Amino acid sequence: MADNPVSSTGLRGQSAGSTALCTVGKSGAGLTYRGYDIKELADKARFEEVAYLLLKGKLPNRAELDDYVTRLKGLRGLPPALKTVLEQIPADAHPMDVMRTGASMLGNLETEQSFEEQQDVSDRLLAALPSIICYWYRYTHDGVRIDTETDDDSVGGHFLHLLRDAPASELHARVMNVSLILYAEHEFNASTFTARVCASTLSDMHSCVTGAIGSLRGPLHGGANEAAMAMIENWQSPEEAEREILGMLERKEKIMGFGHAIYRESDPRNAIIKQWSKRLAEDVGDSVLYPVSERVEAVMWREKKLFSNADFFHAGAYHFMDIPTKLFTPIFVCSRVTGWCAHVFEQRENNRIIRPSADYVGPEHSEWVPLEQRA
Amino acid sequence: MADNPVSSTGLRGQSAGSTALCTVGKSGAGLTYRGYDIKELADKARFEEVAYLLLKGKLPNRAELDDYVTRLKGLRGLPPALKTVLEQIPADAHPMDVMRTGASMLGNLETEQSFEEQQDVSDRLLAALPSIICYWYRYTHDGVRIDTETDDDSVGGHFLHLLRDAPASELHARVMNVSLILYAEHEFNASTFTARVCASTLSDMHSCVTGAIGSLRGPLHGGANEAAMAMIENWQSPEEAEREILGMLERKEKIMGFGHAIYRESDPRNAIIKQWSKRLAEDVGDSVLYPVSERVEAVMWREKKLFSNADFFHAGAYHFMDIPTKLFTPIFVCSRVTGWCAHVFEQRENNRIIRPSADYVGPEHSEWVPLEQRA
Repeated sequence: MADNPVSSTGLRGQSAGSTALCTVGKSGAGLTYRGYDIKELADKARFEEVAYLLLKGKLPNRAELDDYVTRLKGLRGLPPALKTVLEQIPADAHPMDVMRTGASMLGNLETEQSFEEQQDVSDRLLAALPSIICYWYRYTHDGVRIDTETDDDSVGGHFLHLLRDAPASELHARVMNVSLILYAEHEFNASTFTARVCASTLSDMHSCVTGAIGSLRGPLHGGANEAAMAMIENWQSPEEAEREILGMLERKEKIMGFGHAIYRESDPRNAIIKQWSKRLAEDVGDSVLYPVSERVEAVMWREKKLFSNADFFHAGAYHFMDIPTKLFTPIFVCSRVTGWCAHVFEQRENNRIIRPSADYVGPEHSEWVPLEQRA
Repeated sequence: MADNPVSSTGLRGQSAGSTALCTVGKSGAGLTYRGYDIKELADKARFEEVAYLLLKGKLPNRAELDDYVTRLKGLRGLPPALKTVLEQIPADAHPMDVMRTGASMLGNLETEQSFEEQQDVSDRLLAALPSIICYWYRYTHDGVRIDTETDDDSVGGHFLHLLRDAPASELHARVMNVSLILYAEHEFNASTFTARVCASTLSDMHSCVTGAIGSLRGPLHGGANEAAMAMIENWQSPEEAEREILGMLERKEKIMGFGHAIYRESDPRNAIIKQWSKRLAEDVGDSVLYPVSERVEAVMWREKKLFSNADFFHAGAYHFMDIPTKLFTPIFVCSRVTGWCAHVFEQRENNRIIRPSADYVGPEHSEWVPLEQRA
């Protein structure tokens, strides 16, 4: 049974449910959210419009969008008990553990009492997650208790404002907006699937999102942009980068930020974030990190036909905005929470508990031996 | 695509990996942990032996068991920061939210830095989870800050001691022991599968267990024994119970504690806990709840050929031990954490990220309409 091809393939290609939210890698479509092409959304939409699209089912009109933005602004404050919890978490904790604990704690204080509250709970999480990570970060790193209720018009602007204690520039707010759109939704990836498995027991929204954060934390999933950053920041020139990458390939080391479980030839998000990363590099006068990134991309394609995925040029983009590397994956959470919650809605609407089988590879029958007679 | 039979069946019967830990419902075997029959384990083993079997791969000999029990005893204390967090959680919170937050917070304070620490982290969780739930419960319900480091020889005895501020009777310790054995492991159920999906991203143990707790919280999963209790405690006689059950069946209401996703004819755990529930009923001189439970079981079988699962007689058993209903599912966590952790070990040993596909049922192409032109 151990050689059953299904068991070791991580359910690749197996349908685990249906969704109207997203297509990934469908021929000719690349990536779509509810049918809208990601390129068009990244070019024309505000992240709050995309969140609305995913959570409420359609693009908002002007009045709906204004209401939604106002609503999210009003949900940025943190309850005192949650602040106290965040203050108990040490400065050297993994920021994804902070996100996971913050989302879980919020569930104790504002428990989803029935599924009729699912929209409200989701909006609250969307608005509060940037507050959670920044409150902890600023408290443990700068020794300040920040007021998380700012008047910024966007989720990305709110995050950058809290992080730096100053409103974001137009360029930075624009890049955050694009980045949050690119990361918002991606079909049945491992964290979203975690949320759906949890939802299938009819558990509450905070449990679903807390579980999803735990999965996104994994280095094979959300941790990839941080790993890419940790790699490329070591190199001082494209030549050095090429030499090192060739060495890594020879030693068969894993190189993060390349290839994808579903996409075969390219990740449609890459070209978009790459262009913004270049713009930011020019803005800060970078002459090392962006050329290094470009070279790594060229070498990986030349040597292995592996393409940059969404994570690779995100590393430089965030870095040029002076965002600490360890907050890269928490930003991913602040965006993907929209997709997670929308998938929970779908799972709840047409639910059966997700309970697969396993190939048994253990002993057929084990004979009980009394304690005193065991070797 | 919406009528694809796979998509709506919750992966039932689909293999999602291999395991040497457990067989559920295999013909002639009932339920086995690493090949040992559940009846034999419940009859002869200590829960700590079963935990050792699941986590370390074999039954311990006398010296190994003594060491293990001593080791677990030494891991019952809670860090001050975790106690402060638990004290922030209100008395009316859902106890599974407390467990989820406690496990998550522990991950901030004692982060698994590498997979080499997985055994230590698992033992710590096994020892500390009863402390977490009881510390919060006693603080919020009795206004006391308890010392969680007791000298009880068993996990079940430790739990009961903390809950009541007095060592458990021999009978109660024995029933808790059996109960914890019965709940320890059950193949790819939804919470365990949650842990494995999380593990497949190579995330840390606390993320896996936190996610699993969130899934176990769902009323279709771990919440069943609480739901059974809430139902049967309303009835004052077998006759009333029969009348009410027949009414519920006629109204097609869901009756918790019956049937199973995998078992077809009976749940091998039921006969075991039923016999202990009866013994406890005699012990407390019950003449209502146990007869009511027996009648409900008989009516469900007669009318629907639905059998009592592990949860149904657990309700009475816990109740006769004076355990508050809302702590039933947290006890399940204190046991199942052994199975979850053992599954995480397996997933890590032969990993591929668990990333299924979905049937797309949304719009093929949505045309972008500028904000000001939307209806």
